[in-house]
Amino acid sequence: MMELLWIATGVVSTLIFVGLFWVYWHFEGDRSLREYVSEDEEPEGKYRILQKVQTPTQRVALVEHEDKLLVYSNGYVMFGTTEDEDMYGEAMIHIPVSIAEKRERVLLIGAGGGITTREVLRYPDVKEITVIDIDPVMIEFGKTLEPLVKFNQGSLNHPKVRTVVEDGRVFLEKNEDKWDVIILDLPEPTMESLGLSRLYSWEFYHLLKERLNPGGVVGIACSVLSNTPEYYWTIQATLKAAGFSVLPYHFDVIVEHEEDWGYCVAATRPISPADVNILVPNRYLNRDRLKDMFHIRYGYWKYWEEDEIQTDRNRVLAYIQNEDI
Amino acid sequence: MMELLWIATGVVSTLIFVGLFWVYWHFEGDRSLREYVSEDEEPEGKYRILQKVQTPTQRVALVEHEDKLLVYSNGYVMFGTTEDEDMYGEAMIHIPVSIAEKRERVLLIGAGGGITTREVLRYPDVKEITVIDIDPVMIEFGKTLEPLVKFNQGSLNHPKVRTVVEDGRVFLEKNEDKWDVIILDLPEPTMESLGLSRLYSWEFYHLLKERLNPGGVVGIACSVLSNTPEYYWTIQATLKAAGFSVLPYHFDVIVEHEEDWGYCVAATRPISPADVNILVPNRYLNRDRLKDMFHIRYGYWKYWEEDEIQTDRNRVLAYIQNEDI
Repeated sequence: MMELLWIATGVVSTLIFVGLFWVYWHFEGDRSLREYVSEDEEPEGKYRILQKVQTPTQRVALVEHEDKLLVYSNGYVMFGTTEDEDMYGEAMIHIPVSIAEKRERVLLIGAGGGITTREVLRYPDVKEITVIDIDPVMIEFGKTLEPLVKFNQGSLNHPKVRTVVEDGRVFLEKNEDKWDVIILDLPEPTMESLGLSRLYSWEFYHLLKERLNPGGVVGIACSVLSNTPEYYWTIQATLKAAGFSVLPYHFDVIVEHEEDWGYCVAATRPISPADVNILVPNRYLNRDRLKDMFHIRYGYWKYWEEDEIQTDRNRVLAYIQNEDI
Repeated sequence: MMELLWIATGVVSTLIFVGLFWVYWHFEGDRSLREYVSEDEEPEGKYRILQKVQTPTQRVALVEHEDKLLVYSNGYVMFGTTEDEDMYGEAMIHIPVSIAEKRERVLLIGAGGGITTREVLRYPDVKEITVIDIDPVMIEFGKTLEPLVKFNQGSLNHPKVRTVVEDGRVFLEKNEDKWDVIILDLPEPTMESLGLSRLYSWEFYHLLKERLNPGGVVGIACSVLSNTPEYYWTIQATLKAAGFSVLPYHFDVIVEHEEDWGYCVAATRPISPADVNILVPNRYLNRDRLKDMFHIRYGYWKYWEEDEIQTDRNRVLAYIQNEDI
């Protein structure tokens, strides 16, 4: 009978051990990794985490995947040395920059990776580019991280380029300089990153108008149109409420990634697709693509509501983003 | 020392038992369910499987979910008593039927659920509808299953409607009748369902031409355009090779389901969006939606290749589908 007791001891202790191990693995095992590379956006197949950094504003992970570098922010891909990034950068820059009457002085807010700066540098009439990023680590990566410098063609070290580590709103409040083009290429504000909300508000858009030269334009990244059309229309309603004329456009990678990237251009004069005339080399903005970029699908329009605008006190966009997650 | 041996026996046998259980659960546990309701298409939240039937051609599951009936075929939703189905049915029927010069004699192939039949019955000048489905169980459900009959408004029991259980190709080969409108609303052929390939081939499309009255049209469901644009273009290239004029269109539910449904109309005369004039009541095909339905995105066009067409011997579409899975 003693033998049975000893066997039972073995059985019970193993069950307890297996159970505890399962609980640990399930709830704790990969939490630390997941804070840097979320399960949703884990690269397919093999990948290697080169570096994890907790910066003053975010958790950044550098990930190597299929010879590409992916830069993660708080678990999601912010950008990478990929073909997608070339598409994204071309769409972000060439529509607003080609619409602007002049392009001597360009301000890029949220551009630490240097990829959009690379595109702006293609215009020979650009004299001065100011790159603002709130995160010193991002600017440092953009200037020195070898695969990234290769990809952005050393744009952040170019003599025409000045980098500033500062919050974009604070920078514009302090500096009364005027700009021909202002690009806002920022992450979506959420309830966890409320500071960003102040870079999308009616008050901020009013400030932008004061900082534009005559004939100047603002280009704004508007998240994934196919996921959050309400977000897209809220930005445009806010721009209109601040007195801007707005031209919405998009870049469709639905087949490749089930995403349709939303952007818009805002100007103090009426603008239309006919004003777009891209005279610098590019890879993705051919005639047929451009035509498509200004057709906004009915499937998105039907979510248009002009009711709410984003103000410093009414953080509509953060609510929309948090509902989407 | 004997005690340790007995404990070890307990430990090892428990580990073996736990391991075997895990292996069983992981690989076998829910296989039977999964053959009827795949993991990808499991309804969110609570649902109830009302019935599982192995019919001569497929595994059908009737699933109740949030007061709706979903009909699964081989693990994937074929149709349901949902708003989506209304959209799908309106888009499938009203574009081709309104383009046809006459609509007295209509042939629906693959229409056992009766929902597209319901839409065709809205046209008072329709005299005779023939509904073909290879699966007698589907026709039976469409005629008698209470929630479905309520949803299709008893269309399959309407005096203008005749149902035939037969393969669509065999039916057309045997019957030399002519039709004003032929609708092909069929599942995608795969390597596991090669019979379906014969309903998408150059040879079959030639046969369709012989079975059309002058001014008649064919409407074809072309799967999810956003997942498999190559599939969409292959059908159109095949129709053109068979001498048809083709008008592609789509219905976008990207925001709701990350899907864009592809369709096309084929006719023996040139046709264009200007020929579409829907005079019967409908819920989803308003002016703005219609305009959008004929704009095919550049993001799909770039996958266009005219190289290959589907023939009885060259089953291009099944290869495309199997690569997509």
